[in-house]
Amino acid sequence: MNQDFETLKTKLAAITDLNLAASALGWDQATMLPDLGADQRGRQLATIGRIAHGMLTAKDTGDLISRLSSWANKQPAEDFDAALVREARRLRDLEVEVPSELNSAMSEHYSKMYSAWTTARPRNDFATLKPLLEKSVELSLRFADCFPNLEHPMDSLIQYSDQGVTVRSTRQLFNELRQQLVPLVKSVTSAKQLDGDCLSGEFDELAQLDFCKLVAKQIGYDFQRGRMDLSPHPFMTRLSGGDIRITTRARRDDLTDCLFSVIHEVGHALYELGIDPKLDGNLLAGGVSSGVHESQSRLWENCVGRGKAFWDYFYPVLQNQFPHFKNINQSTFLAAINRVEPGLIRVDADELTYNLHVMIRFDLECQLLEGKLAIRDLPDAWNALYKSDLNLDVPSLKDGCLQDVHWFSGRLGGAFQGYTIGNILSAQFFDAAKAAHPNLDAEFSKGHFATLKSWLNQHVHRWGASLTPDELVKRATGKPMTIEPYMSYLTAKYSRLYSL
Amino acid sequence: MNQDFETLKTKLAAITDLNLAASALGWDQATMLPDLGADQRGRQLATIGRIAHGMLTAKDTGDLISRLSSWANKQPAEDFDAALVREARRLRDLEVEVPSELNSAMSEHYSKMYSAWTTARPRNDFATLKPLLEKSVELSLRFADCFPNLEHPMDSLIQYSDQGVTVRSTRQLFNELRQQLVPLVKSVTSAKQLDGDCLSGEFDELAQLDFCKLVAKQIGYDFQRGRMDLSPHPFMTRLSGGDIRITTRARRDDLTDCLFSVIHEVGHALYELGIDPKLDGNLLAGGVSSGVHESQSRLWENCVGRGKAFWDYFYPVLQNQFPHFKNINQSTFLAAINRVEPGLIRVDADELTYNLHVMIRFDLECQLLEGKLAIRDLPDAWNALYKSDLNLDVPSLKDGCLQDVHWFSGRLGGAFQGYTIGNILSAQFFDAAKAAHPNLDAEFSKGHFATLKSWLNQHVHRWGASLTPDELVKRATGKPMTIEPYMSYLTAKYSRLYSL
Repeated sequence: MNQDFETLKTKLAAITDLNLAASALGWDQATMLPDLGADQRGRQLATIGRIAHGMLTAKDTGDLISRLSSWANKQPAEDFDAALVREARRLRDLEVEVPSELNSAMSEHYSKMYSAWTTARPRNDFATLKPLLEKSVELSLRFADCFPNLEHPMDSLIQYSDQGVTVRSTRQLFNELRQQLVPLVKSVTSAKQLDGDCLSGEFDELAQLDFCKLVAKQIGYDFQRGRMDLSPHPFMTRLSGGDIRITTRARRDDLTDCLFSVIHEVGHALYELGIDPKLDGNLLAGGVSSGVHESQSRLWENCVGRGKAFWDYFYPVLQNQFPHFKNINQSTFLAAINRVEPGLIRVDADELTYNLHVMIRFDLECQLLEGKLAIRDLPDAWNALYKSDLNLDVPSLKDGCLQDVHWFSGRLGGAFQGYTIGNILSAQFFDAAKAAHPNLDAEFSKGHFATLKSWLNQHVHRWGASLTPDELVKRATGKPMTIEPYMSYLTAKYSRLYSL
Repeated sequence: MNQDFETLKTKLAAITDLNLAASALGWDQATMLPDLGADQRGRQLATIGRIAHGMLTAKDTGDLISRLSSWANKQPAEDFDAALVREARRLRDLEVEVPSELNSAMSEHYSKMYSAWTTARPRNDFATLKPLLEKSVELSLRFADCFPNLEHPMDSLIQYSDQGVTVRSTRQLFNELRQQLVPLVKSVTSAKQLDGDCLSGEFDELAQLDFCKLVAKQIGYDFQRGRMDLSPHPFMTRLSGGDIRITTRARRDDLTDCLFSVIHEVGHALYELGIDPKLDGNLLAGGVSSGVHESQSRLWENCVGRGKAFWDYFYPVLQNQFPHFKNINQSTFLAAINRVEPGLIRVDADELTYNLHVMIRFDLECQLLEGKLAIRDLPDAWNALYKSDLNLDVPSLKDGCLQDVHWFSGRLGGAFQGYTIGNILSAQFFDAAKAAHPNLDAEFSKGHFATLKSWLNQHVHRWGASLTPDELVKRATGKPMTIEPYMSYLTAKYSRLYSL
């Protein structure tokens, strides 16, 4: 057994090294790559992916896993060695089902599609993208065919990002959430609106980055184990346990885009930085699911970063860095960064309406994969949902169904549910942390964020991918995922802000 | 045959992708990596290296190469497909001889040694490094044992960087060169010395980088296929045919360090950028040897970049960027950047004494591997040669035998000869280019460097590693490597500068 385990562990570590190398190439591609380097970078990534896939699906890897599985299944959930075997089995079981021919066809299609999208979107050019989207639906269905035992075609995609989640469970969750969220959105949008004018101005980009670095450091990001660079779309990436990078962007006319992106990405980074070093260099060293990962970014971005206590500490620092805010009250600023305003663009959405955007996409994905909606009818279906759910007319496709990179750069289906699961879990984790440490707000006002970070390290981060998301949530909060803490958080916050 | 060739080509392309991915990780390590990311980066690089080694040395790769070799050997030298088979055979023949256990022992030792050196060198701490150097000698000798048919133990190391070169051929070359070089150095150092004072001053680092980028662009570096970043030691690296990067460093008190580093690295980069795109993405897409690579960097750095015609064009631009030079004559500047001054540090050496540094190292390496010199006696032997060859006393080990990164980060032996071969070939290639285009100087004074670049593209660069270095030199210059052009260049240049 011991010998088998060591052999397997070494194999998995090599696969992890390849995955991390691919992440490094991906980071470079997003931040550094010269214009004409993209083609061959794509080929290098494909080669590394193919080799890693080959190593995981190889027969001898499978044999080792089989020999170790009955032992692993008998160990407690928190046994890291057993968890490694279980995770290897889970990942391998997924990968062996998908023929490499389909994997290659997908990579090739998504890369072609992404490059078509970058030029077609600004031109509202649906005609170019329509056949590509149709092909995406076809590929997703072929992918679903690899997993004939799953109930819904999209379950085959969801299991990659959010293990344990299905279309059925998501629908139930979303229905419940929608029932409570829609009335709250209505109350807020019918109340007296908050003013966001104080955020308009010109803000030197380098000063923005300086301020963001200061915030990142103060809330616990470790620049000795990471760095912050610029990229068109902000992201966080793990290149190793000692190298967890974040990116952002800075626009002269928008301070909050850069700022909240950084807090968001730092939330993701703190998760990765907090993983038990014993897991480092192998498959379990990473976030366990999209939903749990997003819970960490949204917790810091929203529950902490848009809260009064956070700005009790940081607002004077901001005023000092940007004289623009000298004569603006902290409460005016706080109202501005929290105001609710239904809009067309998901990534610009406020905390309250954000989930409506997610649900629209999830519903449409389901319908597309169920064959109930054809791509040619997607724009109309999209626009109809924006009218019914957000009371908005969609004036152009680029701000409509062509807006999200997800549908135009990867598998159609299975990505969006994680955003709302993340929002729900952010409040559930934050509640549990506050229950354990009732003085968090007082600490935040003094610039101390270490108690919260430690709680998250202890109850969420350190496990990496060794516990299932469900098990992790239960251990950390004492109960399965539930929307109550999230709805209480939203209701309390917006009742106060909008005097409901 | 065709099927075998396509199969082999695909395998070799995957190996190339891994090698290029490793280069990207290496670039990142030198320019971007956070402090605490180094350990795991080393492991990732080791994994990639091991997988690539495994793919090349695999039996089926060997079988394919064997089946294709008799065909490949019958094709003309310029047949790219046949050259790929020959190069694969050459590289594989080298790699199969070295047990992976020895490869791992070497990687581990050099990585440990490098980190010891970074702290021991500033402290002149030979005691710490002595056992490590002894181990390096031992490892180099074990490496040599893998190639029992070679005449000299160091031949086993030289064949990796400079194929076709041996200790015997290098000794002959160096003896010849020394006979002519030493009297020239004597004449120059006994003549009236040139003044370098005009180079002293403070030069804004960002302005230096701007000026260097302008120079790089003007002489032909393509920023769409590359980028320039900062690193402690300047280097050039190929990440793909569309991504050839250079690095430099900028010190406020030294304009020329940054400037000539950039021209040097651009010389390397133009070689890689000029390789026939048909070779791209496979083993032949790269420089053919250290010596030929260095010839390109030294040609641009010295033959072009320290010449009068180059500065006829660039000096006014420099004066405009740095008012420091407003009242300094171009000829004063030209004398300063070309002045000869024997010094202790190889990388700071002038064009004339540089080779003496190289020869000292080469001689010592030979003696160490022949067992004629013990590591404990290395400092004395080093200091004695600096006295006899450069008439210098060596006041400290850090500026003596502990100065070069080569001995403390990789195989001891086999690296230095390439620098002098590069110097020799730089003049030989430059002569051939001038014979074909007698007006190069006139073009340089107008800022036109394209004719020279085209000639190098055509006669040197485009071949990549498809011709042997000897064949390449013969085709490009009409004769084998010879020191005549180099000595004529040096003699003419320094006679003029020092009125000999």
